[in-house]
Amino acid sequence: MKSISKNPLKRPKTEAFADILAEAHQLADISGPVVLRHFRRPIAVENKAGGRAYDPVTIADKGAERAISKALKARFPDHGMVGEEYGVRRGTSPFSWVIDPIDGTRSFVAGSPLWGTLIGVLRDSTPFLGLVDQPYTGERFWSAANASFSRCGGRERRIKTRSCGKLGDAVFTTTHPDLFASDGQAALLVELKSAARMTRYGGDCYGYCMLAAGFVDLIVEPGLKSYDIVALIPIIERAGGCITTWDGGPALSGGDIVASGDPRLHDAVLKRIARL
Amino acid sequence: MKSISKNPLKRPKTEAFADILAEAHQLADISGPVVLRHFRRPIAVENKAGGRAYDPVTIADKGAERAISKALKARFPDHGMVGEEYGVRRGTSPFSWVIDPIDGTRSFVAGSPLWGTLIGVLRDSTPFLGLVDQPYTGERFWSAANASFSRCGGRERRIKTRSCGKLGDAVFTTTHPDLFASDGQAALLVELKSAARMTRYGGDCYGYCMLAAGFVDLIVEPGLKSYDIVALIPIIERAGGCITTWDGGPALSGGDIVASGDPRLHDAVLKRIARL
Repeated sequence: MKSISKNPLKRPKTEAFADILAEAHQLADISGPVVLRHFRRPIAVENKAGGRAYDPVTIADKGAERAISKALKARFPDHGMVGEEYGVRRGTSPFSWVIDPIDGTRSFVAGSPLWGTLIGVLRDSTPFLGLVDQPYTGERFWSAANASFSRCGGRERRIKTRSCGKLGDAVFTTTHPDLFASDGQAALLVELKSAARMTRYGGDCYGYCMLAAGFVDLIVEPGLKSYDIVALIPIIERAGGCITTWDGGPALSGGDIVASGDPRLHDAVLKRIARL
Repeated sequence: MKSISKNPLKRPKTEAFADILAEAHQLADISGPVVLRHFRRPIAVENKAGGRAYDPVTIADKGAERAISKALKARFPDHGMVGEEYGVRRGTSPFSWVIDPIDGTRSFVAGSPLWGTLIGVLRDSTPFLGLVDQPYTGERFWSAANASFSRCGGRERRIKTRSCGKLGDAVFTTTHPDLFASDGQAALLVELKSAARMTRYGGDCYGYCMLAAGFVDLIVEPGLKSYDIVALIPIIERAGGCITTWDGGPALSGGDIVASGDPRLHDAVLKRIARL
């Protein structure tokens, strides 16, 4: 947190940032146990077809979002909040919170820990702060004012993206190949995975955290929602990476997203996308 | 371990099984720290092209296999061992150990915890015992004589596959779609993922553990090696699942593998494969 006061003109005053970051951690501390109560809970698959059967993701999602909403309202009653399950609560403050209790629901259902709780904060509609919590593995990733951090196994450290200027050297991840549904998207995926050093599927928010931490170089995904991405933008940017839409615009509203650990790689991939 | 003495004719005497299971746990305790030393260690990707640069997977693989080999030789000097890195050491005992220090090397490289250390034991060339260790998440899965168990977050429990008779209800995972390289394999993948309720990529051994624990219903993969699968067979079978080659033969030697949590699903998928 030493970096908070370095750029007083570019960022809001220290107190506001530190208070809001503390609240983001607090909300993750609250949501984690709610979500975990439903992770890897045995269910009979065939019963799910009934529609009224136990649906762990929906229940965990809604429960965590309710818990977060209640705690946030008590702490910052004038802040707005946008959640995946309950929609928008407008506030009067410049700050609003964008919450996805379980990003990576398919991983969650299959017992994989590659999902996370996304807590993003906008200030005047600009990404201000982001936090990703993985309560099962005990991992957390977040942005301070000018740097990004992780806490894994109780050990906190600053994270940075790594240098990787060429697609041929890149570890490329994307959540699922079938999301590249149009012919143009499918052609892009073939081109990227042919050129990349390695392609991995199945990351969701976890892949973005690994990019911020310097183990993944490139993520390209079509059709993301705003709540999929708001929390990730400051984590990636303050770790040294780039995250934009496929045409180089702001990633804030979701859509087709590209994230890179190295600006040179980002430029190269945007050029490839533009040629399609 | 109460179940060990239930089938004295089908299984070796209690002492042997308990001793060997204890040694499998011991070997995982030894290999975990060796592998973890190289997990998520920052490397400059571009330097890797040089060939002599730091290669975390190879170093971790070799180091863990050496540590396992040494410990095993001290405890059971007459047992054989087959490892991915150092090949075969023949023994005079009916028992031989099949080791893969890092199954899921691509996950490992990308910072994902979906990899594991595989410790399998054959007795007279028949799967006798298996253990999968994930030292980063602190998860372990293994077969006792007539049941399978997991230890996650320090909590040990018996694991069982779940009931799922129809492909339309199944959570289907496979490590990477591009492994379905031939036209017939690619057609099979399209058919499976079109029919399944959900498809996830990127599991390696972790997917098999989730199948044994009742969160995944089906895994279909082409071209596995023996050391990819020996440790997994007893874990899946003793959890109530099925694991065979695509033509229904023993999975022991690797090749094209199908694993199912429910025998009805297994039969249905083998029939679909036979029609291709």
